[in-house]
Amino acid sequence: MLTAPSLCTTPEVESALRDQRNANLAAIEALIPADIDAGELPRTADARALARFSGAVFQGMSQQARDGATRQELEAVAGHAMRAWSAVAATEG
Amino acid sequence: MLTAPSLCTTPEVESALRDQRNANLAAIEALIPADIDAGELPRTADARALARFSGAVFQGMSQQARDGATRQELEAVAGHAMRAWSAVAATEG
Repeated sequence: MLTAPSLCTTPEVESALRDQRNANLAAIEALIPADIDAGELPRTADARALARFSGAVFQGMSQQARDGATRQELEAVAGHAMRAWSAVAATEG
Repeated sequence: MLTAPSLCTTPEVESALRDQRNANLAAIEALIPADIDAGELPRTADARALARFSGAVFQGMSQQARDGATRQELEAVAGHAMRAWSAVAATEG
C-alpha cells in the first residue's frame, strides 16, 4: 500500500499516488461484502467506512514505519484496529 | 498533527517533520495515564500502544483528507477508532 510520496516533485507523481491510494481503499471495500455474506460481519456493516478506517490505519502504520516504529509496535497498532472490527462483528445486524 | 511532508526536498525538513510526528505520538501517550487514574481506562491499558494506534488513525485521516475524503467519511473513520478505545475501556484491569 502506498501512502506518502517519497518523491513529490511533480503533480503527475502526486496524482498517480493519490489514485493508487484511493484504489487501495476501494479494493478493501470490495472484499467486505463477502464477509457479510459469510455471516462474519452484520448486514448493517458499512463497507465503505470500514475500508476507510482500515486504510487509515495502514497509512498511519506505513508512516510510523518510515519514522522508526518497530514491528512489535506496528503489530500492536494492528491489534487495536482489530478490536474495532470485532466490535462491528459483534453488532446485531 | 503533521503527517507527510508537503515539501520533501531536504533531509533537514524530513528529519524535522519526523521528530514532530514522533513528538505528537509521545504527547498522546502522555495524556493516557490521567484516564487510567480517572478509571476511564483499565490499569492494564497500554498507553504507548493506544497512542500509536490513535496517531496512526490521525495520520491516515490526514492522508485521506489530502486525497479528497469528505468530513463525513473522516468522522466515520474516527467513529471506528473510538470502538477500539471502547473495547479497551471495557477490558477488566
